Amino acid sequence: MSTAEEFSATGSATEAPLMDAEALERRLREIGAARYHNLHPFHDLLHGGKLNRGQVQAWALNRYYYQSSIPIKDAVVLSRFRDRETRVEWRHRIEDHDGDRGSEGGIERWLKLTTGLGLDPDYVRSTEGILPATRFAVDAYVNFVRDHSPLEAIASSLTELFAPTIHEQRIAGMLEHYDFINPDVMVYFRRRLEQAPRDANFALNYVKAHATTPQMREDVCKALIFKTNVLWVQLDALYHAYVSGFPPPGAFVPAEH
Amino acid sequence: MSTAEEFSATGSATEAPLMDAEALERRLREIGAARYHNLHPFHDLLHGGKLNRGQVQAWALNRYYYQSSIPIKDAVVLSRFRDRETRVEWRHRIEDHDGDRGSEGGIERWLKLTTGLGLDPDYVRSTEGILPATRFAVDAYVNFVRDHSPLEAIASSLTELFAPTIHEQRIAGMLEHYDFINPDVMVYFRRRLEQAPRDANFALNYVKAHATTPQMREDVCKALIFKTNVLWVQLDALYHAYVSGFPPPGAFVPAEH
Repeated sequence: MSTAEEFSATGSATEAPLMDAEALERRLREIGAARYHNLHPFHDLLHGGKLNRGQVQAWALNRYYYQSSIPIKDAVVLSRFRDRETRVEWRHRIEDHDGDRGSEGGIERWLKLTTGLGLDPDYVRSTEGILPATRFAVDAYVNFVRDHSPLEAIASSLTELFAPTIHEQRIAGMLEHYDFINPDVMVYFRRRLEQAPRDANFALNYVKAHATTPQMREDVCKALIFKTNVLWVQLDALYHAYVSGFPPPGAFVPAEH
Repeated sequence: MSTAEEFSATGSATEAPLMDAEALERRLREIGAARYHNLHPFHDLLHGGKLNRGQVQAWALNRYYYQSSIPIKDAVVLSRFRDRETRVEWRHRIEDHDGDRGSEGGIERWLKLTTGLGLDPDYVRSTEGILPATRFAVDAYVNFVRDHSPLEAIASSLTELFAPTIHEQRIAGMLEHYDFINPDVMVYFRRRLEQAPRDANFALNYVKAHATTPQMREDVCKALIFKTNVLWVQLDALYHAYVSGFPPPGAFVPAEH
């Protein structure tokens, strides 16, 4: 009989209870080291210059749905807190992504990338051509922060702890390898190099302070595992559709060049 | 610039408005013919005897999460209707899947299949080893029937119109090709051959009677497309993990034989 023994190297109940905040942080970093999507084969292809323009288009098109859902997700997180201070702290995340009248935010920076790749911004905004798996994974993230505890909602953002490395690799790798990528369109990632560490530090300190029992610390770890799955599923779907070559009915098909 | 032209052969707004119930039914059948998961390469492999026991285990394990979520989905659908008659009609779907004290339902019949395949029923019930994409797709279905109109909630069940053919192929193909499959474990599908047509006819007549404007008929079609995506994503994820050979972190890994 097959069993659950393989299930999780970092999140299963068979591991030692998390007795304090330091043990929690260690486990969170182990989860990132085992499950963050920098380990996904699609990222090796993307950063190593192994994709063609159509495949990079598909990645940017699908990732737009994730980017443009983040302020919605963060508004749901914000709505979970009765204390003003957490709301004020969390609000700047929405501002980072949405910008303001007369100033661009992360979503517009992402559209610079997709436009630079030759995609019509109206088509990108419509999200019509994205993979259904992208939509299901991203929507699952929005639903998660609504349906789980406020502590878990914050914990699910902790993938940002591991983001700076991947953004640095991406900026360097994509500029080096693709003649259709120039520094202007990479501004999203350069900006996130400043924003993500601040956000991640707040969230890490929050969960270390507010997860006060082993069970709560376990829930924090599970929220991070959930979020790594949200990211991983998106790359699995891109790989299957645009590297293995099985785009599902109705999804974006790159133009022939 | 890439555009949305490829988006949909059967569900886009560029097609003629659906002026009556017969036009709606024709469009629904076109959607099934273009998008139902009997067209997915994983099903060819499954029914044609091209999978090994571990791959069939992975399929049955993941599909259990879908099966066991159906009565939850149907309870949400039921909760959307104030009229008693629709509730009474819909309630038998929950009974079909859950059974009753002393009688088995569809979920237990599915566990006969997974047990027959050598999977520990406690492991299957835990859903710990399923692919994250399976969970996101199935949960999207439950959320859909809660968040969309009652009409769309019923419409999303219309994939049952196309189920009898696939169940017949599956029973014949799996019994013929796999020595680890015997008639006892296929009882789920034989039972669905009787149940699905009744359910599908009710739902089809319901949407034909209650979708009274072109926009409502369009919404019904979109609900069916959504549901075909829920099914397709599950097979894409199985193919990527267990045929292409990229199981994501934490997912079921078949034992070596």
